[in-house]
Amino acid sequence: MTPDEFRRWGHEAVEWVARYMEGVEQRPVLSTVDPGWVQAQLPAGPPEDPEPWEAIFADLDRIVMPGITHWQHPSFFGYFQANASGPAMIGDLVSAGLGVQGMLWSTSPACTEVEIVMLDWLVDLCGLPDRFRSSGAGGGVIQDGASGATLCALLAARHVATSSGAALGDLVAYASSEAHSSIEKAVRVAGLQAGQLRLVPTDDGHRIDPVALAALMHEDRAAGRRPFLVTATVGTTSSHAIDPVRAIGEVTRRHGVWLHVDGAHAGAAAVVPELRFVNDGLELADSYCFDPHKWLFTNLECDAFFVADRRPLVEALSVLPEFLRNAATESGLVVDFRDWHLPLGRRFRALKLWFVLRHYGAAGLRHHVAAHVRWAHELADRLDADPRFELAAPVPLNLVCFRHVDGDEAGARLLDAVNASGRAFLTHTRLDGRYVLRVSVGQTSVERRHVLALHDLLDELA
Amino acid sequence: MTPDEFRRWGHEAVEWVARYMEGVEQRPVLSTVDPGWVQAQLPAGPPEDPEPWEAIFADLDRIVMPGITHWQHPSFFGYFQANASGPAMIGDLVSAGLGVQGMLWSTSPACTEVEIVMLDWLVDLCGLPDRFRSSGAGGGVIQDGASGATLCALLAARHVATSSGAALGDLVAYASSEAHSSIEKAVRVAGLQAGQLRLVPTDDGHRIDPVALAALMHEDRAAGRRPFLVTATVGTTSSHAIDPVRAIGEVTRRHGVWLHVDGAHAGAAAVVPELRFVNDGLELADSYCFDPHKWLFTNLECDAFFVADRRPLVEALSVLPEFLRNAATESGLVVDFRDWHLPLGRRFRALKLWFVLRHYGAAGLRHHVAAHVRWAHELADRLDADPRFELAAPVPLNLVCFRHVDGDEAGARLLDAVNASGRAFLTHTRLDGRYVLRVSVGQTSVERRHVLALHDLLDELA
Repeated sequence: MTPDEFRRWGHEAVEWVARYMEGVEQRPVLSTVDPGWVQAQLPAGPPEDPEPWEAIFADLDRIVMPGITHWQHPSFFGYFQANASGPAMIGDLVSAGLGVQGMLWSTSPACTEVEIVMLDWLVDLCGLPDRFRSSGAGGGVIQDGASGATLCALLAARHVATSSGAALGDLVAYASSEAHSSIEKAVRVAGLQAGQLRLVPTDDGHRIDPVALAALMHEDRAAGRRPFLVTATVGTTSSHAIDPVRAIGEVTRRHGVWLHVDGAHAGAAAVVPELRFVNDGLELADSYCFDPHKWLFTNLECDAFFVADRRPLVEALSVLPEFLRNAATESGLVVDFRDWHLPLGRRFRALKLWFVLRHYGAAGLRHHVAAHVRWAHELADRLDADPRFELAAPVPLNLVCFRHVDGDEAGARLLDAVNASGRAFLTHTRLDGRYVLRVSVGQTSVERRHVLALHDLLDELA
Repeated sequence: MTPDEFRRWGHEAVEWVARYMEGVEQRPVLSTVDPGWVQAQLPAGPPEDPEPWEAIFADLDRIVMPGITHWQHPSFFGYFQANASGPAMIGDLVSAGLGVQGMLWSTSPACTEVEIVMLDWLVDLCGLPDRFRSSGAGGGVIQDGASGATLCALLAARHVATSSGAALGDLVAYASSEAHSSIEKAVRVAGLQAGQLRLVPTDDGHRIDPVALAALMHEDRAAGRRPFLVTATVGTTSSHAIDPVRAIGEVTRRHGVWLHVDGAHAGAAAVVPELRFVNDGLELADSYCFDPHKWLFTNLECDAFFVADRRPLVEALSVLPEFLRNAATESGLVVDFRDWHLPLGRRFRALKLWFVLRHYGAAGLRHHVAAHVRWAHELADRLDADPRFELAAPVPLNLVCFRHVDGDEAGARLLDAVNASGRAFLTHTRLDGRYVLRVSVGQTSVERRHVLALHDLLDELA
């Protein structure tokens, strides 16, 4: 494709996306295609000859769009958001155009250095502990997601434990039963057995009980096992419970155990100084992550992963074949991010974060995140005042969990009705064994009116 | 950012990328900034207030560009390419605009179904075995890279072996000493010890010796260990050696061992029917991957990973918490790709592959890939005829490996001189202990004249 052809169809794509942004609110949020419908519209094999772009864009509208659940719809309240934004899209486009592969510092120094600086900027922006800055022993890196970050934390912790003589089969990791499924997945990937992950009892608020954690650790030590990792969650997926990181950190410090804090969604709240209770105790963590691709307007994939000491991480993940040797690496003056995560290849993801942070500024990010939290509280107050509903968990931030007082079936029917309406999209979970509807308020273009409209819809359908 | 602001700056970004495409050939390929230069140009912290886009684009030129090694320069002959293209960039832009997260079929059916069909199209396009089609027990998925694919193959193979009673500590994996470092990394991640990866002796052509492989397996079995995985490479990174997959497959079949074939770079050659020797024996493989993001004009990240049986892969990787339960998944009628790889979140990567396959057509892809191979052979012939050089390995495809006859130091000096010239970029490796220069001919915009110019440069600097 010549540069001029790229101009022609690149501009067309920008218009297509701009029209999508303008019109997304008029679309039903949830796709209603049947399994196999999209597949059935596509030819069985690739075309022999080039096809015109008019046909490609027409098929995008005809075949793809009916099969899209609109994560960028302002009334998408499901899961946690993946809140995209214009500046991040532009950053992604420039990254695609440059097409650099930043596995080593030397394969494009800017790809590594902009990333180092952006992660340092996030330390400032969110008021994170200084130990996560690149200027000391620690530093940050962009991972594809919190699952990758969790796995890397586990691998670094495993390295620390096995380097000091522990056997793989004796290691024990800890997390609450409310912790994300990515922890179980990471444990399994790393070759540990299911029994090597202990689910720590939680209190009434679905938070890890640090006393129970300490007791479990003592029990494991007494039995000759080796506690090596605790994953605490700031903002669990089910209910936004915030584990008592400080108290947990005191336990992990005492036991010489790695503490990873997973703030995948809630961590972004720290851009608002009044919400920095999400950072409490983080200075006791060995690693931490949150996802700008969830609640900080930065398109997938962009997880910010920080370590207090980069050495064990790099030792756990570095393999240096001849074909990657280079003078810069051997000088010891540079960072090679391929040693900070699982993939070797890496695109220039820091560009979109740079563009987002500059386009919004710290003030703009605070403004949006604070508004989401305010509207979530407003919705929670209304639901709480309605005798048909009851809140299922406290609302520390922007996730509202509630039940239908008529029970699980009534709740499930309500969820289905909301989603079938096309006017909003919610997802569910279970807390204390009971069916719970979740409302996550964090889409890029959500406004107060969308939250109020959701309330009207719940009122109408309940 | 409003849709109109996105229009304004999105169009500006398209122009920026188009100008970059037009001018990249005039830039020195290799960045010459010193470590820390880019970092020093950036403010220490994020801006408090929004910044104008004029400033952002100006800084892109002033700060980022000097720190870019131009992977999209037609004279980038290093590593293996990451050959970007206009249609892939447009696909990436549309994907960013839609901003869907396709972890489950239900979270955007089109994201999953277009991917299923695109991977089936690749089976046709490359003449891969039918067992990798989604219509049978197998199927394909997009992974972030061959490292991820290798790890997933290992985890599926590990699951098969441990499900039948093998202990983790008894497992043994096999690959040649020329295999990619990602295998060692995957073995380590999965909790195996270094000794559980056997490096199989290679023949004169740096290919696995299947007789030696069988002997090692017998020895391991006799010692009570459990062979569980062989990774064969089609096109090693150092020399493009092609392991004898058919003969290896006969060994793995006999021993009931998983065979993964890593065709990360060379696999794309199969778009040209005359080059389908790269597929020989693939019908004996349990899994296979190649990277459209290397040599098939599809921007990072896009690895095509195929399994003959998806069941062990999904069993190895699936964890289903309540908050991801949904009717479609429970119907059993759909595929949830989050269970096919490590990450949970996933962007709509199949769009760019769809756009590439339609923009080029099978004929266009064949044309470009065949030309790269032809020009590589032409370069190899010229170097072979020059008494100052000797070829260090056969040239089955588009990678030319050669030595300076004056020895390792002369070779290293030549490489440095080429790269310092800014007119081309090469990387090196070692084969049989000796320093080797590598020329990979596969950049999207490379033409015969660039390959001839590289020859002139080598002639001038040798």
